[in-house]
Amino acid sequence: MALSEFEIIRRFFHREVPLRQDVALGIGDDGAVVRVAEGCDLVISTDTLASGVHFPADAEPSDIGFRSLAVNLSDLAAMGAEPAWATLALSLREATEAWLSGFARGFFSLADEASMQLVGGDITRGPLAITVSVYGSVPRGEALLRSGARPGDLIFVTGTLGDAAAALELDLKTAPATHARALRQRLLRPIPRLIVGVGLRGVASSAIDVSDGLASDLGHIVEASGVGARIEVASLPLSEPLCQLVARYQAWELALSGGDDYELCFSAPAMHRALVTSLAHSSDCPITQIGVIESERGLRCVTPDGSLLTIARPGYRHF
Amino acid sequence: MALSEFEIIRRFFHREVPLRQDVALGIGDDGAVVRVAEGCDLVISTDTLASGVHFPADAEPSDIGFRSLAVNLSDLAAMGAEPAWATLALSLREATEAWLSGFARGFFSLADEASMQLVGGDITRGPLAITVSVYGSVPRGEALLRSGARPGDLIFVTGTLGDAAAALELDLKTAPATHARALRQRLLRPIPRLIVGVGLRGVASSAIDVSDGLASDLGHIVEASGVGARIEVASLPLSEPLCQLVARYQAWELALSGGDDYELCFSAPAMHRALVTSLAHSSDCPITQIGVIESERGLRCVTPDGSLLTIARPGYRHF
Repeated sequence: MALSEFEIIRRFFHREVPLRQDVALGIGDDGAVVRVAEGCDLVISTDTLASGVHFPADAEPSDIGFRSLAVNLSDLAAMGAEPAWATLALSLREATEAWLSGFARGFFSLADEASMQLVGGDITRGPLAITVSVYGSVPRGEALLRSGARPGDLIFVTGTLGDAAAALELDLKTAPATHARALRQRLLRPIPRLIVGVGLRGVASSAIDVSDGLASDLGHIVEASGVGARIEVASLPLSEPLCQLVARYQAWELALSGGDDYELCFSAPAMHRALVTSLAHSSDCPITQIGVIESERGLRCVTPDGSLLTIARPGYRHF
Repeated sequence: MALSEFEIIRRFFHREVPLRQDVALGIGDDGAVVRVAEGCDLVISTDTLASGVHFPADAEPSDIGFRSLAVNLSDLAAMGAEPAWATLALSLREATEAWLSGFARGFFSLADEASMQLVGGDITRGPLAITVSVYGSVPRGEALLRSGARPGDLIFVTGTLGDAAAALELDLKTAPATHARALRQRLLRPIPRLIVGVGLRGVASSAIDVSDGLASDLGHIVEASGVGARIEVASLPLSEPLCQLVARYQAWELALSGGDDYELCFSAPAMHRALVTSLAHSSDCPITQIGVIESERGLRCVTPDGSLLTIARPGYRHF
């Protein structure tokens, strides 16, 4: 089967009913034309997922479609932006109907949930790789940055950490099936914390999404903010499956240095503690305090006996 | 040498002096934050260039950098948009200093000329491929679309056609060196017609950039507009090198079906003929009338003796 680029777009990516009123022109011209609401900044983020690097070559197309949008939406969440539009650059060796329809199903299941509209893209022949760009808006000047953490601020994370890394690194064959499934789901279908991100505007002093590992990503916050951080490792939120499968120290290690969880890590002034608690309730998303920002530079991960934990692998390096 | 993603960005893509005041936050956070001027629409376009598909594997890195931005800017030109920002997703097998500095030199030479700022991106390990997204603005509702051509409108193209295709398809070894160089330059470093594009707002009834070949791209205009077109092939603007190297019929064939020229093709009401002429002068860009829009569907390419030219290869298909 040889589908042309136009046929692929028409059959799998073009949708009759435009979702959003702020899209003046969607797929099908030299560019898309969209409208940013007055008084709002535009937030742009882009991420590439390559086969064999960011997902296994034999991953389900629908999971690939879901994940390629999810990791990008997670960046919007970390900026406190409300998602609006996406573009998709797809490089494919061969354009099979099964692959394309699976990919589109996964992609649009999340796009629809986030009320996003795919407004353009490009399809080329090449090794399987997906570059998604996402566009969202924040009220002018309210984007959450990495650079605003101040000594005394509390450090929080959403959800649980280390699950995706466990799915990647542990042999789950002997694990109870429900545990194995739960951990794999965290890796394949990360849920971007969009509602929390929007709720953190005016509350958080800094934010980042945990894609490379907590130690590495919190490291970006403290570096950009010119501060340091103390983490109480006993406070790290761990899932039930992870706790049951590995010893506590290994769970901490996975939580600190494993990537791909796509939770949010943020700092907030202590006076906003109640606002954070109330956001956790209203968004139905657990939020846990794991430490404090300190003026002394660097990252200190303190175990219950008061000793410092050394992190063996501080985050993922691409080259 | 193993450069980390952060080092690559810092050394080759991050620039100390931000170019544009409408960039609230550039490279280095989870996303970029930019401001679209009030009363303006945002135009988004994205294109991938893959090694061996869109450029030869042994192409000069600086030409690849230039071209990856140029083909995207050409889309903004075809929308009548003024360029503002870009993001760059780079997939690389190995990150050598020579390649990166050459690529960045070519990319930024054009970005600077277009007063664009690179605001974000992603670097991953994989087969060489470049996805650039570009963002520009047009006054609300003034974007040039493919769908506005009306019977009686005149059809114009900028510059000359067929040069890039000649560089791809002809054996230039025996051609005079200056001719060979001129044609190759058209292929390697296409000049996006940004000033003409902006000048066509309120003048052109439709526009597209010629990336797949005139017949194919004008075909998109007539299809989107629900009309047809008659092209006088003797009017097709041909460069001196092309005319000297091939017979007239072959030059027409290259001009009609060869892609990669990145000129603009547009329609305009006959009453705007003088405006088009004056735009050609003010922008220092030749603009030639090549035909008229007709109500009868389809594309008719008429030779000087009145016969219809059949186009052997109607445009490039990716799959």
